[in-house]
Amino acid sequence: MRHVISILVENKVGVLARITSLISGRGFNIDSLAVGETENPAISRITIVVKGDDAILEQVRKQIGKVIDVIKVIDFTNEEFVERDLMLTKVNCPIGKRGEIIEIADIFRGKIIDVGQKDLIIEIAGTEDKLEAMLSLLRPYGIKELVRTGSIAIARGAK
Amino acid sequence: MRHVISILVENKVGVLARITSLISGRGFNIDSLAVGETENPAISRITIVVKGDDAILEQVRKQIGKVIDVIKVIDFTNEEFVERDLMLTKVNCPIGKRGEIIEIADIFRGKIIDVGQKDLIIEIAGTEDKLEAMLSLLRPYGIKELVRTGSIAIARGAK
Repeated sequence: MRHVISILVENKVGVLARITSLISGRGFNIDSLAVGETENPAISRITIVVKGDDAILEQVRKQIGKVIDVIKVIDFTNEEFVERDLMLTKVNCPIGKRGEIIEIADIFRGKIIDVGQKDLIIEIAGTEDKLEAMLSLLRPYGIKELVRTGSIAIARGAK
Repeated sequence: MRHVISILVENKVGVLARITSLISGRGFNIDSLAVGETENPAISRITIVVKGDDAILEQVRKQIGKVIDVIKVIDFTNEEFVERDLMLTKVNCPIGKRGEIIEIADIFRGKIIDVGQKDLIIEIAGTEDKLEAMLSLLRPYGIKELVRTGSIAIARGAK
């Protein structure tokens, strides 16, 4: 099963290395991982997407919780949460095709952030499904480069 | 100096752990790190933002290049590139303040992706400066939660 796990850690040298070693030591491959600052510069938040056996993952989650400098581990699996991924993609684009590609970007509310002689760069944020849907329309033009942040997640507020 | 480094790797168990250990082993703290898929599911791209001594960082860059499963290491420092970060933030928001907060989100082209009784969640992508600028206007309302992906980067196309 796919799990989105959020880990609050003290922003210290080596914490990330300990956590990634723990996960790969159990044979899990990390689908995506994002580490960024929180409101408090002394604390970072790591978001990990990982697929695998639920029981073993539960053990890994507990082990992560015991790592020094780890403040909190949240598994979003059974929570109400929103999830977003960011993608920058450089698409092959002869001048005559610009209109078509800009149209596709607009439909998905992507932004054109750079235009070159033979390509353009689109920025888009959304769920993995949305990013995949846009990509499937852009593929026929030729994807020259693609970089994604991996998912980040946040719990929904009380209704 | 601040460096944005992009690393193409084979999508295998343990690669990320080896790279993060290498960097923290030299005493560098990673400001942000994002790992996501590329167009080829067998290859992932790691984007790291790190600050520190240029000469030592150059050594680390070379060591990373020697790690098995690392395909390519790019330091964007002297390149023309675009850089984007994604942030989800839950802002304290009594019903009477909704209009004001939505206005701030609109100015920065942020999107409201969830509304609760006492808070709302804003999604925004942009440069670190833009994210910081929006945050400084939202802080007086109270930031309840904040998660960022860290920067990803892509080289500009030939003009």
